[in-house]
Amino acid sequence: MVQKMAKQAIAVLSFSIALFILAPQSSCSQSLSVSFRRAPRFPSRSSTSKLHNLFDSQLTKQVPRYQYETRYFKQRLDHFSFSNLPKFNQRYLISSEHWAGPDRLGPIFVYCGNEGDIEWFAANTGFMWEITPSFGAMVVFPEHRYYGKSMPFGSKERAYKDATTLSYLTTEQALADYAELITSLKRNLSAEACPVVLFGGSYGGMLAAWMRLKYPHIAIGALASSAPILQFPEIAQPDSFYNIVSNDFKRESTSCFNTIKASWNALTTEGQKKNGLSRLTRLFRLCGELKDTEDLAYWLDSAFCNLAMVNYPYPSNFLMPLPGYPLREVCRKIDGSPDGTSILERVFEGVSVYYNYTGEVNCFDLYDDSQGVDGWDWQSCTEMVMPMSSNPKTSMFPRYDFDLSADKEYCRTEYKVNPRPEWITTEFGGKDIITTLKTFGSNIIFSNGLLDPWSGGSVTQNVSDSIVALNTQEGAHHIDLRSATRQDPDWLIKQRAAEIKLIKKWLRQYHRAKGAAN
Amino acid sequence: MVQKMAKQAIAVLSFSIALFILAPQSSCSQSLSVSFRRAPRFPSRSSTSKLHNLFDSQLTKQVPRYQYETRYFKQRLDHFSFSNLPKFNQRYLISSEHWAGPDRLGPIFVYCGNEGDIEWFAANTGFMWEITPSFGAMVVFPEHRYYGKSMPFGSKERAYKDATTLSYLTTEQALADYAELITSLKRNLSAEACPVVLFGGSYGGMLAAWMRLKYPHIAIGALASSAPILQFPEIAQPDSFYNIVSNDFKRESTSCFNTIKASWNALTTEGQKKNGLSRLTRLFRLCGELKDTEDLAYWLDSAFCNLAMVNYPYPSNFLMPLPGYPLREVCRKIDGSPDGTSILERVFEGVSVYYNYTGEVNCFDLYDDSQGVDGWDWQSCTEMVMPMSSNPKTSMFPRYDFDLSADKEYCRTEYKVNPRPEWITTEFGGKDIITTLKTFGSNIIFSNGLLDPWSGGSVTQNVSDSIVALNTQEGAHHIDLRSATRQDPDWLIKQRAAEIKLIKKWLRQYHRAKGAAN
Repeated sequence: MVQKMAKQAIAVLSFSIALFILAPQSSCSQSLSVSFRRAPRFPSRSSTSKLHNLFDSQLTKQVPRYQYETRYFKQRLDHFSFSNLPKFNQRYLISSEHWAGPDRLGPIFVYCGNEGDIEWFAANTGFMWEITPSFGAMVVFPEHRYYGKSMPFGSKERAYKDATTLSYLTTEQALADYAELITSLKRNLSAEACPVVLFGGSYGGMLAAWMRLKYPHIAIGALASSAPILQFPEIAQPDSFYNIVSNDFKRESTSCFNTIKASWNALTTEGQKKNGLSRLTRLFRLCGELKDTEDLAYWLDSAFCNLAMVNYPYPSNFLMPLPGYPLREVCRKIDGSPDGTSILERVFEGVSVYYNYTGEVNCFDLYDDSQGVDGWDWQSCTEMVMPMSSNPKTSMFPRYDFDLSADKEYCRTEYKVNPRPEWITTEFGGKDIITTLKTFGSNIIFSNGLLDPWSGGSVTQNVSDSIVALNTQEGAHHIDLRSATRQDPDWLIKQRAAEIKLIKKWLRQYHRAKGAAN
Repeated sequence: MVQKMAKQAIAVLSFSIALFILAPQSSCSQSLSVSFRRAPRFPSRSSTSKLHNLFDSQLTKQVPRYQYETRYFKQRLDHFSFSNLPKFNQRYLISSEHWAGPDRLGPIFVYCGNEGDIEWFAANTGFMWEITPSFGAMVVFPEHRYYGKSMPFGSKERAYKDATTLSYLTTEQALADYAELITSLKRNLSAEACPVVLFGGSYGGMLAAWMRLKYPHIAIGALASSAPILQFPEIAQPDSFYNIVSNDFKRESTSCFNTIKASWNALTTEGQKKNGLSRLTRLFRLCGELKDTEDLAYWLDSAFCNLAMVNYPYPSNFLMPLPGYPLREVCRKIDGSPDGTSILERVFEGVSVYYNYTGEVNCFDLYDDSQGVDGWDWQSCTEMVMPMSSNPKTSMFPRYDFDLSADKEYCRTEYKVNPRPEWITTEFGGKDIITTLKTFGSNIIFSNGLLDPWSGGSVTQNVSDSIVALNTQEGAHHIDLRSATRQDPDWLIKQRAAEIKLIKKWLRQYHRAKGAAN
């Protein structure tokens, strides 16, 4: 069973939320439930994914290109032991074009690289590039170890060989990489006194917030956008993610929500009929024959979750080329099909907005396994144990209860590794983290769009004078970090202005304290 | 050269400050200098040292015995990677005798174990045991990994085999051990809401302060006694340690200071004469023939430094059985010898107070190598690079300039390891650590006795309302943590009362915040 799930997991690693539907015991079971672990995933692109490659030429055209140098920094593989391990080259992007320099204490803006190619994050974090000139800042984008070109052991193949080589892919090592790089950069530029401000979105936002907590001497503040640092055992509600996705749909249209809610059962029922899998293969225009309705359910689930994350108010191409308010468009398709259109046909029309907005895709490949093992799957099998459940009473998804023992079984089978579900909260703070932040932290902005399903695990209330939540009702996943567009709504312009104001305040305070000390 | 020094280092590991005097190039050279690295060492006892064993029966009699259970906790060897390493049993001592329990939010007092057997630290930290009943506190003394009975790989022999096995003896791993142990203990006792207060002296005090910075969610405050967290590259002055030792002597008697100052040259000159080494062997009552005046100089240097550290106002037996104000006694001997007594004879009379106060030692063994490699030597060869120099203009010691490259050579030869001199300041804060503490830290007491040579690398000024320095002019190395005696001077009674008051304040604030949150 686990073997099969593991294989499926690999097959679908290009998507965002691992979801499998159990073939129900009786053909008309209403109590659908999910058998596979819902290991939470943030939106990210892999350069090797066929699906994404299709749009890469468009990406190149659409996403603004920023000017930077690409450099490499030699890092220890294990910062916290003296094992004789090979060092690796960490890639980082750097631009000093607008930097005011050390004499004027020009700030250094550092983006905490997430689980992916750093060039992609640099291209999608226009906010940092755009505010740089007015701050006289240097911009640095260090890449997260084991992603992009920052591969230990010389290649991805070797780095991802097994648990022995993947062993050092942890958040604490990544934070120490950033600490070492920043310290060394500043020393080499005689810029020790220049203030560092951290930025990060999604997992990168969590890293930024944690880095501010763990390395307060390295950075004076952090903008942590859509950073679900509470999405860990015994802190946030595990069903908040799917509830928010569902509410986003319901908000657009109750009938859309209901159609999707009904589709899971329809899918299973159809799959169990004679030639059902073949009919589903044709209906969903799949490239290869559907093997199991679970696979298709997973594909749909991924689309809905990703849509909720990238439900931006203008056309964008973060994961896929999409229209503005894509979720509204999906519901229009689902609701607007002619009378007599079946539930599953409606749903297919809907997700086509996500998977095939340009109309260039002829068939959909559910079994694209070109990516091999990916780093986030390892991370969720080790430290990043973020419980996720879904509840049919409060969402449009079938029931799934977070199942740690099934998770553990999967991880042992897949990687021969035991997850440490309590480690992140031991290392970075657990149930009481808000109190810790209040009494001990300072200078962190937790920015959130409340449509973003990750906002349920993020800090959405002001904690103190200097640890503040900047929420937008209409925002999605770290939209504030994206480059400004002409279509930016007022609430987004205001959110960014508030962020700039706070960062300026941190810098003023720093300069004042520095002046007083000298 | 390095080979020879390495061998010597092992020979003298039972002492506290590594010091070797270069045989001067010309016989009457006045420009004495030290050729060997002065790797700083805190006072500690090894149970295998012959010299110490001599007094063990006395120790048993004199040091109060506290009641506790001894338990073991399974720890990961590398908390920050998922390498498949064997777990090890960390020893900890625990007493719940006076604990008010979880319902009354009874506090948990945790001593951050230093580089030695935890039972010895428990026996020498009477302050914690004595204040426990009035706080209704639980007491926990976790042992530092690689010391005492907390040996990875099953035995000291295997743990200390080479750099591969010693690799995980680092401060960050030790702090993570404490974090894991405390979190697990609290969970098992349903005591998650009980506030933890950290204690530590010397290196243990550094760990307590760093733990409060790195794990603010685990402990609400820390009493860091004689904790030289500034004794790292580019922060404190490297010659402060030897200057303070010297001033302690000068304060007792200028002639005593001058005699010691002159003795280094006298020693070298004597050693270079015909049969000089034999005469020195007899004069200093050595068990074996003296091979090099450097060895004797190191032995003397160790005595002076240790005397300055344990210069307590009452008879004590921390490192050696000593009278009250032992340094005064040493100077009395040095100054009080009859006219015509030579410089070296005077110095011998003086250090005999340290090495042979009970008069039971027949001869002194400079070449006691029964201890083998010790953990602190490894730590100072890896992370704990604490530069130390001595300046004949400001001290009674010959010139020695901290020499990182010689250090590195020694460590490569000895352990095949490269020191990381900049790591501790990257991880815990460097030049700006005071600013970091001020703007980010809270609830730390840095207590210092200003006679303690380590006070030069400690925080001796109030940093903020809640990060305070409690200094005593007459205090030595973490005297405040020792058990109360009838001879305690007023300043010591007052220092401890101030500490208790501050800890009570932290607890009151915690209870108030907790009450407000519930």
